[in-house]
Amino acid sequence: MYHHIKKLMYTVNVGEPDARFGKMLLEQFGGANGELAAAMQYSIQGLNCDDPGLKDLLMDIGTEELSHLEVIGTLARMHLKPTKTSRAAADADPLIAICGGGGVSLYNSAGNAWTADYLKITGELDVDLRSNIAAEARAKIVYERLIDFCDDTGSKDALQFLMTREITHMKAFMTALAAMEKPPLAVGLIKPSPKIVDQYFNTSTGTGDQGERDLLAPWNDESSVERIDAPAFQMFADPHLGTRKAEPIDGPDLTPPTEDAAQPVQTDHAAAAARKKSSARGKAS
Amino acid sequence: MYHHIKKLMYTVNVGEPDARFGKMLLEQFGGANGELAAAMQYSIQGLNCDDPGLKDLLMDIGTEELSHLEVIGTLARMHLKPTKTSRAAADADPLIAICGGGGVSLYNSAGNAWTADYLKITGELDVDLRSNIAAEARAKIVYERLIDFCDDTGSKDALQFLMTREITHMKAFMTALAAMEKPPLAVGLIKPSPKIVDQYFNTSTGTGDQGERDLLAPWNDESSVERIDAPAFQMFADPHLGTRKAEPIDGPDLTPPTEDAAQPVQTDHAAAAARKKSSARGKAS
Amino acid sequence: MYHHIKKLMYTVNVGEPDARFGKMLLEQFGGANGELAAAMQYSIQGLNCDDPGLKDLLMDIGTEELSHLEVIGTLARMHLKPTKTSRAAADADPLIAICGGGGVSLYNSAGNAWTADYLKITGELDVDLRSNIAAEARAKIVYERLIDFCDDTGSKDALQFLMTREITHMKAFMTALAAMEKPPLAVGLIKPSPKIVDQYFNTSTGTGDQGERDLLAPWNDESSVERIDAPAFQMFADPHLGTRKAEPIDGPDLTPPTEDAAQPVQTDHAAAAARKKSSARGKAS
Amino acid sequence: MYHHIKKLMYTVNVGEPDARFGKMLLEQFGGANGELAAAMQYSIQGLNCDDPGLKDLLMDIGTEELSHLEVIGTLARMHLKPTKTSRAAADADPLIAICGGGGVSLYNSAGNAWTADYLKITGELDVDLRSNIAAEARAKIVYERLIDFCDDTGSKDALQFLMTREITHMKAFMTALAAMEKPPLAVGLIKPSPKIVDQYFNTSTGTGDQGERDLLAPWNDESSVERIDAPAFQMFADPHLGTRKAEPIDGPDLTPPTEDAAQPVQTDHAAAAARKKSSARGKAS
Amino acid sequence: MYHHIKKLMYTVNVGEPDARFGKMLLEQFGGANGELAAAMQYSIQGLNCDDPGLKDLLMDIGTEELSHLEVIGTLARMHLKPTKTSRAAADADPLIAICGGGGVSLYNSAGNAWTADYLKITGELDVDLRSNIAAEARAKIVYERLIDFCDDTGSKDALQFLMTREITHMKAFMTALAAMEKPPLAVGLIKPSPKIVDQYFNTSTGTGDQGERDLLAPWNDESSVERIDAPAFQMFADPHLGTRKAEPIDGPDLTPPTEDAAQPVQTDHAAAAARKKSSARGKAS
Amino acid sequence: MYHHIKKLMYTVNVGEPDARFGKMLLEQFGGANGELAAAMQYSIQGLNCDDPGLKDLLMDIGTEELSHLEVIGTLARMHLKPTKTSRAAADADPLIAICGGGGVSLYNSAGNAWTADYLKITGELDVDLRSNIAAEARAKIVYERLIDFCDDTGSKDALQFLMTREITHMKAFMTALAAMEKPPLAVGLIKPSPKIVDQYFNTSTGTGDQGERDLLAPWNDESSVERIDAPAFQMFADPHLGTRKAEPIDGPDLTPPTEDAAQPVQTDHAAAAARKKSSARGKAS
Repeated sequence: MYHHIKKLMYTVNVGEPDARFGKMLLEQFGGANGELAAAMQYSIQGLNCDDPGLKDLLMDIGTEELSHLEVIGTLARMHLKPTKTSRAAADADPLIAICGGGGVSLYNSAGNAWTADYLKITGELDVDLRSNIAAEARAKIVYERLIDFCDDTGSKDALQFLMTREITHMKAFMTALAAMEKPPLAVGLIKPSPKIVDQYFNTSTGTGDQGERDLLAPWNDESSVERIDAPAFQMFADPHLGTRKAEPIDGPDLTPPTEDAAQPVQTDHAAAAARKKSSARGKAS
Repeated sequence: MYHHIKKLMYTVNVGEPDARFGKMLLEQFGGANGELAAAMQYSIQGLNCDDPGLKDLLMDIGTEELSHLEVIGTLARMHLKPTKTSRAAADADPLIAICGGGGVSLYNSAGNAWTADYLKITGELDVDLRSNIAAEARAKIVYERLIDFCDDTGSKDALQFLMTREITHMKAFMTALAAMEKPPLAVGLIKPSPKIVDQYFNTSTGTGDQGERDLLAPWNDESSVERIDAPAFQMFADPHLGTRKAEPIDGPDLTPPTEDAAQPVQTDHAAAAARKKSSARGKAS
Repeated sequence: MYHHIKKLMYTVNVGEPDARFGKMLLEQFGGANGELAAAMQYSIQGLNCDDPGLKDLLMDIGTEELSHLEVIGTLARMHLKPTKTSRAAADADPLIAICGGGGVSLYNSAGNAWTADYLKITGELDVDLRSNIAAEARAKIVYERLIDFCDDTGSKDALQFLMTREITHMKAFMTALAAMEKPPLAVGLIKPSPKIVDQYFNTSTGTGDQGERDLLAPWNDESSVERIDAPAFQMFADPHLGTRKAEPIDGPDLTPPTEDAAQPVQTDHAAAAARKKSSARGKAS
Repeated sequence: MYHHIKKLMYTVNVGEPDARFGKMLLEQFGGANGELAAAMQYSIQGLNCDDPGLKDLLMDIGTEELSHLEVIGTLARMHLKPTKTSRAAADADPLIAICGGGGVSLYNSAGNAWTADYLKITGELDVDLRSNIAAEARAKIVYERLIDFCDDTGSKDALQFLMTREITHMKAFMTALAAMEKPPLAVGLIKPSPKIVDQYFNTSTGTGDQGERDLLAPWNDESSVERIDAPAFQMFADPHLGTRKAEPIDGPDLTPPTEDAAQPVQTDHAAAAARKKSSARGKAS
Repeated sequence: MYHHIKKLMYTVNVGEPDARFGKMLLEQFGGANGELAAAMQYSIQGLNCDDPGLKDLLMDIGTEELSHLEVIGTLARMHLKPTKTSRAAADADPLIAICGGGGVSLYNSAGNAWTADYLKITGELDVDLRSNIAAEARAKIVYERLIDFCDDTGSKDALQFLMTREITHMKAFMTALAAMEKPPLAVGLIKPSPKIVDQYFNTSTGTGDQGERDLLAPWNDESSVERIDAPAFQMFADPHLGTRKAEPIDGPDLTPPTEDAAQPVQTDHAAAAARKKSSARGKAS
Repeated sequence: MYHHIKKLMYTVNVGEPDARFGKMLLEQFGGANGELAAAMQYSIQGLNCDDPGLKDLLMDIGTEELSHLEVIGTLARMHLKPTKTSRAAADADPLIAICGGGGVSLYNSAGNAWTADYLKITGELDVDLRSNIAAEARAKIVYERLIDFCDDTGSKDALQFLMTREITHMKAFMTALAAMEKPPLAVGLIKPSPKIVDQYFNTSTGTGDQGERDLLAPWNDESSVERIDAPAFQMFADPHLGTRKAEPIDGPDLTPPTEDAAQPVQTDHAAAAARKKSSARGKAS
């Protein structure tokens, strides 16, 4: 059972309404990674859940997301209100202006109606927790982008609050997954086929227009996997592939990537992103 | 650029076609967690990707999923072919029978057309990897359920192959995420607000009809988080909640869950699931 | 802000699960006239609303519908749980079985994902109240049909409760509309064009295969409206139709319906429906 | 059977095309409350209808709406035609420009394809009439908003004609509902549960950031309903709630709203709206 | 302007209602190739059309399709009516039963709501005529399949009438396309690039599990096209591919298909289909 | 099985990114007539196909379209990249900016998610070839419009390449259809009803506001068809219309169109279009 208190979880103040920014905000109201999607995904997982501890967790966070829906909706409403009376504002979002009279509805930033196709609910608890961790990560980055495009202090405060809570939830779901003490690749009960599971299929080869190429990396080097280059052109060596009668044919140029090409430079990825971002901001302003 | 070889990645043999099972198989052809969704999610992430190593990974797996799409489609096609000529089979899936003449199309097991709303693509690499890990976990459990409902040996072989590859991919994405060496909660560049991020909002309280109740667990006990019971009825103590002027009001019965209620019994979750499943199978047969 | 209590608004007991009936129940969980549609329609109208009294009403009922969503979802979940383990049950709803592991999600009785296209939100208060009255009437009749198809006493009890509440809400919205004291046809501020507004266009004429024909009735007789027969074949007499230069042409046989054909027999409609229904039940059993 | 006359029901003249306004007009061509939605809702209700009088009414209005579809489509077409050749116009609606070559299609003002999810058809005549009354009210207000944003005299004339007809139809449906002589709350045949139907659940309490609060109003005061404050925290007193074994718990601060807070000021709502509107117009211009 | 006559274009008689067949019939009421799709596609093309002759044609056929919509809807309605009162019938189509009270709505045979995404409208007349020819061919084959699954004489008569008219329309659209006297490949005004347009890319090679292989056929032999085998592995010889700096790499085994493999045996395709069909019917009965 | 080569089928160079043009380009990435639609339509037709020659053709072109998807996606990506960092660019496509971080996803130019409802797959080979011919014609004209709105040389080159290939494919599908040597109106196996198939129903009559009127043309003159004027007002003379008991009624003014009105001037259509286009370009610039 639900009860509603007429107080926002975070008070929303808006200086100058910005209808185009209001349209962007709808992404977190009625969009794919928005608050309704979060509220419904967790609450319905909770409704289906037989484990009392996880059910409690899912209902706690699912309910909090309903309160977030109210906050982001109120914020978007404030920015979109002028679409009722100003033609210029209405041009920023004709659907809200003409259909909603300046009021919000469950659309995303392109005016698409919210759909339950956004939800990921399987009823397998560890799987659902992984979907939730990913959902929170997506919601976090979307809020960050909204903050990046926002000039209004009050709006930024509310967005910062909502963004922060996604991290809180992400951590809670990660902790819950860890508490299940399942091996990370143990999904369900049926075991994967032993040899095939350790084969990495290198199905994309050659050199791209920007110099993209095969690289050796932890996920595809021979330390942990058997690398199968261009399987479309190879006979499968493994009899577990069974009834398959594939004949060997001459394949494409598959000279293995050299060792010195190895190790993509992901380690400084965050720093690189930061550099790119701040330089971009420089350019944008 | 793509090239196609007229050989399935896994040879498909079907004994007796089962149109109702064919309809179920469509879930992995044109469904939310199916092979087209996987192929498109990874390939488009790859197309957008500026990191050469991850781009290579995304294109490798995205391309493999296209080959899986061909396998599962061929399998479903074999089971659904009788819908063209047998009215009984057609009643199992009128859309395939009447519209497709017994041929498959991009529908799920309920006949819904595939939609890109299934995809999760943010352009933030670590976030996308999390979405991919979750996607693989979902695909794995869906294949397991299909195997559980399948009587045909040839179909099971092919499904086992496809299911196995999801684990392979899940591991590759996990390895790639680990290789980025980012702290697990470091999404994007903007930091969450310090105190609020450590507060757990207990928004669902009381005792349910089946005895569901608040439980202390690693994600909500005081060792790592500050627990806020029923925030709708509390004044926020933290000034970071800013402009909010909430007054304290008398709240609901919020006697904290006792310590002996703690620790939900997730540790034997897999075993419990196995027991439930085999007993259910006993009942079902 | 929302708070959740772990107790259903109405305790749900199910005797023998009936997966096909569970699929029907989804209509009120994730369907066009279901509880999520109601909860979202009223809550978002409330969020947009500047009138404190109506906002209070909309939030009261919107929040109650969230509690109904939980009740109907729990009921459907109980009926659909066997789809996880029994192939026969799974055939009744493959999507729930394969994708949801026997758990509910936001689908209707045909497996369509819930969409915000179901909602009617205009931001014009009297208009929204009319949409809400109609929505409650639809929800009521849908619950009645579910009760008609239900054999299980516990399920019927819960459905009767939910159905009853729709009447409660319908009355509240009607009372609120009456309290606005607006003339029933005064929508918005722009007046309709005087003469045209009183013209009834008889655009469907002749006699049907079942003897359907034009009938004189309160809505189209000359006491309140000017009847324009077959306007497609008439010159408009009214200059308010303005720039239109339509020339008179000879039209179809438009001998006016005779007076004795008048007054369709709607007055005994409820009784007739009851007779038809009970006789149908006799035939059906 | 249908026949088409090559003359619009209302001649359309457009001065200067305005592509952005044309995009807005699509809302009434292929949008949720537009003419196709109206035409289909009434015509299909008519097709299903066994009552000859109401069938006649539904076919009359359903057919007229097809003629309106032609008028609004022609009007939108005139405003959107420049999108074929002018890049600036094309930027206003790329979908119409690139896909349609400047021609209209069944999209709304955000480019969403028309969907039958917009329709409300239950086959229960009094229910369908309520849906139709609400649909006409929505269409009226949408036309009013289009007129408010329109500078072109010829376009306004046509919109005024179409808007007027919505009122005509609204009145006809209201008259038909009245002619059924059913008690307003008598939907279907199953009676609501006696006591529960008269309980008003006050599920939203407290005081909002803008001072929103509980108000006594005709729909929730004790003259006609039994008011249940915060039912999530109450034991239900009524045994008709049946198997429910809810225990009383201490609830939130539920001091009843005071009498002097009563009676929201809806009575001057229209006047207030008019004031707000004209002042807004003042600001906008 | 439209006028409706209360007589079906083809009188519909149904012997024994068959709810499952009624569900199939919905494919032509609210499905992708159904009558509403046809009516809307042609009528809106007509609305956009500046050529008076083709506009006349498009409105003639578009209007006739509206009459067909009424016929197929009435037929489906008769078969689905028992879903209102019989649980067994309701299980055949819960959506029609629960939501529609046994009345039809704009769904296809899987219960998907009709969407304007089905329509193909480009505003380029010869292109639209091609889309219409294909649409009529699709509608014809769907009607044929419905007839194949139908036992009821009256239903078959009506379906035969509707199927016949699709051929009539297909011929009319073909005649109109021929009357435009455009070269068959002259679409629009911009010429294709000369050499590239004559290259056939053989992007699918090898031998399939069922012996599928490359075949020489009129569309890919050297009489009319330049055959490029496995372009992904070839340097493009043509400088018109311009800025591309692709280096030659060793490709897969591309021994050209032998001449004796040439000429697929499509010439006896219809006969083969007929044989397969009648033998299938033998098996099915 | 698929293999991917890290080289685009056509190298993409972009001078100055133009976010609004990038949004237009999405039409061919995730739109109704775009490359994914083509790739899926042909590949799945191929998967269902039992004729080895046509299967080869369908897989060849289906695979090539996947390579085109990569080209157009890369092109759109380059134009949309600035939406990540520039607010002005982000306003051009908030969905790509906020949700995709400047990366493309499967949307069309209005931000609608790609749906398999775009596909036309019937499993009847000649019918599918007709759908494919029409699909290629549509894709061609859409590329032409993109070129018309494009200022960037590199983008135009790539679009010209993609546009050219549509003509190549259109020709291949036409050749394949011709190679089947079926009479053009012989769809499926059931013959149309003899007399009815030769009747042209003139269901749209009168004179329009722009002087539109009935015209005699090759598709409706008496040389090849029997012309039935205003069938809604006529008794069907043909007993093949069977059980229909329509009575003659006086119909509308149906004076036949005069002979001198005949022959719409389609013959100079292309020239007229060219004139209109170049004059429009003159005006637009």
